[in-house]
Order: sequence, then structure tokens, then C-alpha cells
Amino acid sequence: MKHEDAFKRLKNIEGHIGGIIRMMDNDVYCIDIIRQIQAVQAALNRVSSIILEQHLDTCLTTAVRGEDVDERERVLKEIAEVFETATRT
Amino acid sequence: MKHEDAFKRLKNIEGHIGGIIRMMDNDVYCIDIIRQIQAVQAALNRVSSIILEQHLDTCLTTAVRGEDVDERERVLKEIAEVFETATRT
Amino acid sequence: MKHEDAFKRLKNIEGHIGGIIRMMDNDVYCIDIIRQIQAVQAALNRVSSIILEQHLDTCLTTAVRGEDVDERERVLKEIAEVFETATRT
Amino acid sequence: MKHEDAFKRLKNIEGHIGGIIRMMDNDVYCIDIIRQIQAVQAALNRVSSIILEQHLDTCLTTAVRGEDVDERERVLKEIAEVFETATRT
Repeated sequence: MKHEDAFKRLKNIEGHIGGIIRMMDNDVYCIDIIRQIQAVQAALNRVSSIILEQHLDTCLTTAVRGEDVDERERVLKEIAEVFETATRT
Repeated sequence: MKHEDAFKRLKNIEGHIGGIIRMMDNDVYCIDIIRQIQAVQAALNRVSSIILEQHLDTCLTTAVRGEDVDERERVLKEIAEVFETATRT
Repeated sequence: MKHEDAFKRLKNIEGHIGGIIRMMDNDVYCIDIIRQIQAVQAALNRVSSIILEQHLDTCLTTAVRGEDVDERERVLKEIAEVFETATRT
Repeated sequence: MKHEDAFKRLKNIEGHIGGIIRMMDNDVYCIDIIRQIQAVQAALNRVSSIILEQHLDTCLTTAVRGEDVDERERVLKEIAEVFETATRT
């Protein structure tokens, strides 16, 4: 499987969210819940970066080296879009 | 239960993460996975904001209006800390 | 003057932006410009945090301990708003 | 000049920072200063995105289509790095 590292990290994040839900069920202190959410966010940032890195080395490289100009433009535009969203979230 | 809205949103986010894991299992295109992760991040931002808002109206207000100076300082310091982390994630 | 530390940092940031403008004028490599912009963003995050911390200890504490309920609500709402914006930028 | 749009935006941002410095000098309300800093941050995000987009269409495309494997790897690694930093600031 590709992305094995990212896959495992996402499984951990799913468990982490489950833990935060139980914390809320047990009326844990709000700030501790916010801190856990922020930890999940940092973990998700890492997953995005890992997936992007693999994408650049595979799909993007293939598309940019290929002769299909539309495909090349599409793939570059996608990178610009996810970068712009990353700066905003 | 307090935080009912935030609680429901977190349950949805847990399901959303499960969906992303299945996408990865099915070798969905990397950029579509990154976009879903970014959608989860936006949803988590919203949950943090909801919880913080309730915290300000309850715990923080009680602490700041109270006479325990240490408690007051602790609660204000926590807000500064989660704000600083929010600017970085 | 209040906020002296934040003030000095902002003056430095202004100079930093001036430096980036000169880099662009000299056709410096795009990625190096993006890195400098990201350094400015980190510096601005720090300034916001410093100002917020002082605000919590002064204006917010006064308002929350005061008897004007509207004022109290307004001040708490502002914190929630800048926190939400911080999660998005 | 390349990047003319980004260049003009950075000049405006420099002026915006100057305005925030004057606000601090005049003891403007803390929250209004934080809001202006957040507006600058959003504007800087936009500049980064514009520069990245041009970089992808020019330098990155040239490097990835070229035969220098080290250069290609370096350019892809840079994109991964600025993306990861973008998720954290």
C-alpha cells in the first residue's frame, strides 16, 4: 500500500478524536479539550505534508514531464490550491 | 450535556476521518485526500471556537470575577496559550 | 508606553517587509521570498499573542469584573472572534 | 518585472504595518490592533500563494522537465517544505 505511514497516522488520529469525544462525555475541562483538538490539528498537518510529498514525487512529476499540457496545468493548479487552503486553515 | 453542538460536530468529524481512511484504502487521488483533511481541519477550528466561546462565558467569567488571584491568572494564561497555539496550527 | 515589546517587534517586521520588497526587486529566488514571508507570519503571530496577553490582564479583567453586562459580553465576544480568526489564518 | 501583482501587494502590506505601528503609538484598543494584524496575515497568505503559483509554472516546471535529477529533487523538496510551514503558521 502506498502512503502506509500516512495511513497509520490517520488511524491514530481517528482514535484520538474518539478519545476527545469521551473527554467531552465526561465533562473534562474545556481548555484540555481544546488542547487535544489542537494536537489533532498538528497531527493532520503532518499527514497532509506526507501525502503531498509523495504526490510531488509521483503524480506531479509524471504529469509535468508528460506531454499533456492540460493535465500539467491541472496538476500545478491543484498544488497552488491546496497551498492556499493550507495558509488559511 | 454542555457542549452539545460541539459534541455532535466531533462525532461527525470522527466519521469524516473514517471516510478519509477508506479513501486511502481505495487509493483515491492524493489531492482529494488532502482536500478532505483540510475540510476536517476547518471543522475542528469551528469546534475549538465553540468550546472556547462557552468557556469564556462560564469558567473564565467565574474565575475572573472570583477572589482567587492565582486561579484568575491561571485561567487567563490558558486563553493566551490556546490563542498562541491557534496562530501556529 | 504600553506594549513596548510588541511595538519594537512590529517595527522590526516593517523592516523585514521592506527587505522582502527589495528581494523581489532583485529577482531573488521565489522560494526564498516565500520563506521570508512565512518568517514574517510567525513574527506577527507572536505580536498578536503578546498584545492579547496584555489585553486579557487589563481590559478584559476590568470588563469581566465590572457590573456592565453588555460591556462584559462584548469583550468576551471579541476574544472568541479573534480566536476564531486565528484558527483560520 | 515578474511578480508585479505580488510586489504591489507587499508595498501595501508595508504601509498597513506602518498604520498599525501608528495605531499602537496612539494607544488604539488592543483588539482593533490584533484585527489589523490578522488582516495583514491574510494579505501575506495571498502574496505567498501568488508567488508559489508563478514558481510552479516557471522554475518548478523547468526543473521537473529537466534531466538534472538532483535539481528536480531539490525543487520538489522545497515545495513540500513551504507547504508544511504553511500548515503551521
